[in-house]
Amino acid sequence: MYEYKDRVLELQNIISEKGIDYYVIPLSDYHNSEIPSDYYNVIRYVTGFSGSNATLVVAREEAFLWTDGRYFIQAEQELEGSTVKLMKQGLKGVPTIVEFLDSNMKEEDVLAFDGRLINVSTYKRYSETLLSDTNNRHIYDVDIVGELWPDREETKCQGIWILEDKYAGEKVKTKVEKIRSNDNFKKADAVIISDLCDVAWTLNLRGNDIKNVNVFYSYLLITKEKIILYVDKNSLDDKVLNYLGYENILVREYNQIYEDLSDKLFYNSNNIYKILIDEESTNTSIYSLIVENVEVLSARSIVSSIKCIKNDVEISNTRNAHIKDGVAVTKFMYYLYKTFSKRDNNSSDETEISLANKLHEFRLGQEGFLGESFDTISAWAEHGAIVHYEPTQKTDIAITEDSFLLVDSGGHYLEGTTDITRTFLIGKASSKMVRDYTLVLKSNISLAKAKFIKGTSGKSLDMLARNVLWQEGLDFLHGTGHGVGHILSVHEGPNNISIRSPYDIPIVSKMITTDEPGLYFEGEYGIRLENELLCIEDESNEYGDFLKFECLTLVPFDINCIDVSMLNEDERSYLNEYHAFVYDKISPYLDEEEAIWLKEVTREI
Amino acid sequence: MYEYKDRVLELQNIISEKGIDYYVIPLSDYHNSEIPSDYYNVIRYVTGFSGSNATLVVAREEAFLWTDGRYFIQAEQELEGSTVKLMKQGLKGVPTIVEFLDSNMKEEDVLAFDGRLINVSTYKRYSETLLSDTNNRHIYDVDIVGELWPDREETKCQGIWILEDKYAGEKVKTKVEKIRSNDNFKKADAVIISDLCDVAWTLNLRGNDIKNVNVFYSYLLITKEKIILYVDKNSLDDKVLNYLGYENILVREYNQIYEDLSDKLFYNSNNIYKILIDEESTNTSIYSLIVENVEVLSARSIVSSIKCIKNDVEISNTRNAHIKDGVAVTKFMYYLYKTFSKRDNNSSDETEISLANKLHEFRLGQEGFLGESFDTISAWAEHGAIVHYEPTQKTDIAITEDSFLLVDSGGHYLEGTTDITRTFLIGKASSKMVRDYTLVLKSNISLAKAKFIKGTSGKSLDMLARNVLWQEGLDFLHGTGHGVGHILSVHEGPNNISIRSPYDIPIVSKMITTDEPGLYFEGEYGIRLENELLCIEDESNEYGDFLKFECLTLVPFDINCIDVSMLNEDERSYLNEYHAFVYDKISPYLDEEEAIWLKEVTREI
Repeated sequence: MYEYKDRVLELQNIISEKGIDYYVIPLSDYHNSEIPSDYYNVIRYVTGFSGSNATLVVAREEAFLWTDGRYFIQAEQELEGSTVKLMKQGLKGVPTIVEFLDSNMKEEDVLAFDGRLINVSTYKRYSETLLSDTNNRHIYDVDIVGELWPDREETKCQGIWILEDKYAGEKVKTKVEKIRSNDNFKKADAVIISDLCDVAWTLNLRGNDIKNVNVFYSYLLITKEKIILYVDKNSLDDKVLNYLGYENILVREYNQIYEDLSDKLFYNSNNIYKILIDEESTNTSIYSLIVENVEVLSARSIVSSIKCIKNDVEISNTRNAHIKDGVAVTKFMYYLYKTFSKRDNNSSDETEISLANKLHEFRLGQEGFLGESFDTISAWAEHGAIVHYEPTQKTDIAITEDSFLLVDSGGHYLEGTTDITRTFLIGKASSKMVRDYTLVLKSNISLAKAKFIKGTSGKSLDMLARNVLWQEGLDFLHGTGHGVGHILSVHEGPNNISIRSPYDIPIVSKMITTDEPGLYFEGEYGIRLENELLCIEDESNEYGDFLKFECLTLVPFDINCIDVSMLNEDERSYLNEYHAFVYDKISPYLDEEEAIWLKEVTREI
Repeated sequence: MYEYKDRVLELQNIISEKGIDYYVIPLSDYHNSEIPSDYYNVIRYVTGFSGSNATLVVAREEAFLWTDGRYFIQAEQELEGSTVKLMKQGLKGVPTIVEFLDSNMKEEDVLAFDGRLINVSTYKRYSETLLSDTNNRHIYDVDIVGELWPDREETKCQGIWILEDKYAGEKVKTKVEKIRSNDNFKKADAVIISDLCDVAWTLNLRGNDIKNVNVFYSYLLITKEKIILYVDKNSLDDKVLNYLGYENILVREYNQIYEDLSDKLFYNSNNIYKILIDEESTNTSIYSLIVENVEVLSARSIVSSIKCIKNDVEISNTRNAHIKDGVAVTKFMYYLYKTFSKRDNNSSDETEISLANKLHEFRLGQEGFLGESFDTISAWAEHGAIVHYEPTQKTDIAITEDSFLLVDSGGHYLEGTTDITRTFLIGKASSKMVRDYTLVLKSNISLAKAKFIKGTSGKSLDMLARNVLWQEGLDFLHGTGHGVGHILSVHEGPNNISIRSPYDIPIVSKMITTDEPGLYFEGEYGIRLENELLCIEDESNEYGDFLKFECLTLVPFDINCIDVSMLNEDERSYLNEYHAFVYDKISPYLDEEEAIWLKEVTREI
């Protein structure tokens, strides 16, 4: 029985009363965070759908929910009996939300949403497409969820902690100076930083509001003279208060930013006539308030362009974090070996979840471990072919034999954040499995051993990884790499390695980017091999400045799945050097039995 | 003695009289052609400089000439004794023309040029940078060369000929239908086609106005009902006149377009309220006339987006043109072998120019040969390191021994146009020469054997060619490939293969693009290996539609310069298959002696 019908109906009643024709509810927070905290999950409250990507569009008589391929089956189940129509994003014939609205909204129709949940770039896309001189349509910023969800728990900041200098590597003062000396900042009088990772990085603070991300709900306003942090004041302990005082950071209540930005006096007293925003992370309500009072300048986040270039402390600490993470994952790999190589067929009780927990234990054993950097993907056999698979109690299956276990996981340590994928053979490999594994490895190595002229974009570099698979008529439908935050979101821009990227962002020295090609065969298995690559300087000569990669990740590839005859000389020597390096770095932290095994599985081939 | 001083002075007098402060003279025609006809070489008339790239900026007391690295030495010689200051484009500290004007023009200053010689995109860049609300500067469209150069010969169209259907492959009617059904055309009432190759292609006509390009000076105006060709009417013979009549093409005098576009009645009687232009090929005078009367829409050339996808007749004919060209170049290669392998040291009289002439003779021997598609680059030893080197009587040197002869050349045939570079070893190769040759070959093959998903741009594909050289800390400072016109300009857009391209143009089925990586060592030698690649369809599967290349060029690589141990298995089998294919296609047209030799130099390695 579908128990949410009343809530959808109530929503429809409210919008009718208010004269709204279409109301849009995205699964988002006020900062366009990749994963918002539970407080913001209005969609689950209204419809029962619990996936992590969704937008609900409510009309007076109908309602529509957009989600992506990961959640089609789940959404069908959770929406069963509902009047909410599922819109399968990306399938042929399924319109995008804007296309849908444009073809359904009549003249004079009113579209509304809570402007805090819609970022400026989406808002602009809506208004450019939907509004014309002649159609008299309207877009309003109204929060109607407040009325609908009376017992909604107030959101509270879950505590904030200081990342000491020895971990942050750069003082707040220097970071703010860098922001203020950015060309885009100079054209303005102030910048609003809405992205939670950007705020945390700038202030050398971390929080606990979003699982796996170490951020806290806040806004930061930096003027030429002041730094104002909008945050839940009750969450600040004395240590943090003193720290903020010492750093000359003014503190105001989280919601106060809306009042401040409505107030002409606030702008005048702070000499603000032009404010710089980032249209991706700034919400429409904030944007509207500023536009009413002063000039708005738009540019991509200044902080993200600074923080993607890691400082020397972050880099050397991250190397250490990868030793710790490498030890944990290597021990896990040995655990798999012990558990499955010696058992009688099918005799183990291990499942996807039990193994994810086991890996968690190994990470817990590392000093300075703060938690996973994202929910572990532990995917056995055919589950591995579902790119975003994450085992739940409902889907968990036992590990049997002769297939691949794909484990994509990562940790936050005080020294830095990791993200690694290894695909482990359990049992025996078919020749196709070996071929596929070797192709993914070749693709990984092809990018990892690149040497390239300064200015080369991640988009171009992706050719090196894809080309290996394309030659065989194969491909994978995700990016090859993403930037990695420092004890922040494991997905960080602007750097990425993706042929489909709309931007040509050069990969430059001191960026950390993942290298994670894969192959996925529905109903069979998935293979993904992911290392993190630090971009470093190579030779400079008359042709320009060359860059290359240092591999940070320290876990062996599965030597039993590699067809050596498919590797060329360069690939073979790259692999042998990598394995020797892994052994050197990891073996000191293993017990004798583990070390002997590691020597064996990192042997020259 | 510098004999042009008076002309520069006279120009300065004229601009002073007219109240002009800076007068810009580009080396261009009214269509922004890559190479204008001699009529337009005002710079040579005024300054004596004879290079193919130059812009002259004349101030009241000074004059400045911009040219690129190819011409620095030549310009210094030709401008010796002149008051014209040489501006070495691209060198550090040398401003661009716009930068120069912006920092030198005072308030109220007047910049002028003949608007017919400046395209719209350059004009817009000038006005955006130089004019502001406050500086009161002005830009005027004035031709003052008319007064200066009284005995300038009138330009005349040098004849027009019809490219028969069996060579053009598509009727004018169909081409015009395609243009009219283009989305950008539909937004307008007419399009002005200024690019000479675009006009020639659309009308299946060719001309003789620009050396090596087969175009004729003209404009084409296509409305929803009419096709109007503006051309020197005297140049049309009865056959062409009949043809134009049959195709319903109205003919008006070349210069009449300026009068028509000044005339409100002309627009009204043709129902033109919006005109589409391409800002690259349309000149500023035309643009200004239209802007005064109707709305202007801008979009990249519709014709170029159609003509870059070759039709089936063009493709199969081009294959035949490459057999002819392959026979000529292969015979030339055998001539080199005979001449230099058997001689006593240094006993031949051959020079760069004599060999270019020899190659011309071999092409002349092919049926349907119309002429070179560009001036042959025949560059011995250190001359090969000068990327745009073209031998002149002054620079010509004798071919001695133990170095490379780089020959970049091409022909127009009734069946199509070719562009090929081979680098021939004369004498013995050092191990560095063999290594460098093999690297360039690997780079060429890496692109040639690519298989890639539909949507992949030439910019991305360039990674495959560059990566091979970058791994060794080497590079070349030109694009890897350009589109090739069909009995038109050998350089044709929009397709190109270049990591430095500002555009992400996908390489799609039926495009022809060159693959020409190189290595250049100043004072030593240059190596470039160029084939033309036709993009064709490969498999389609769940990942998408794959594309690959068919190599059109049919001339062996120099087997004596290849270090087989540097080739991987794929490269070796690619090369062997290519050589076997070349032998199959070319040997039937050789004499016995040549065929025996070809068999030997295309043997498996």
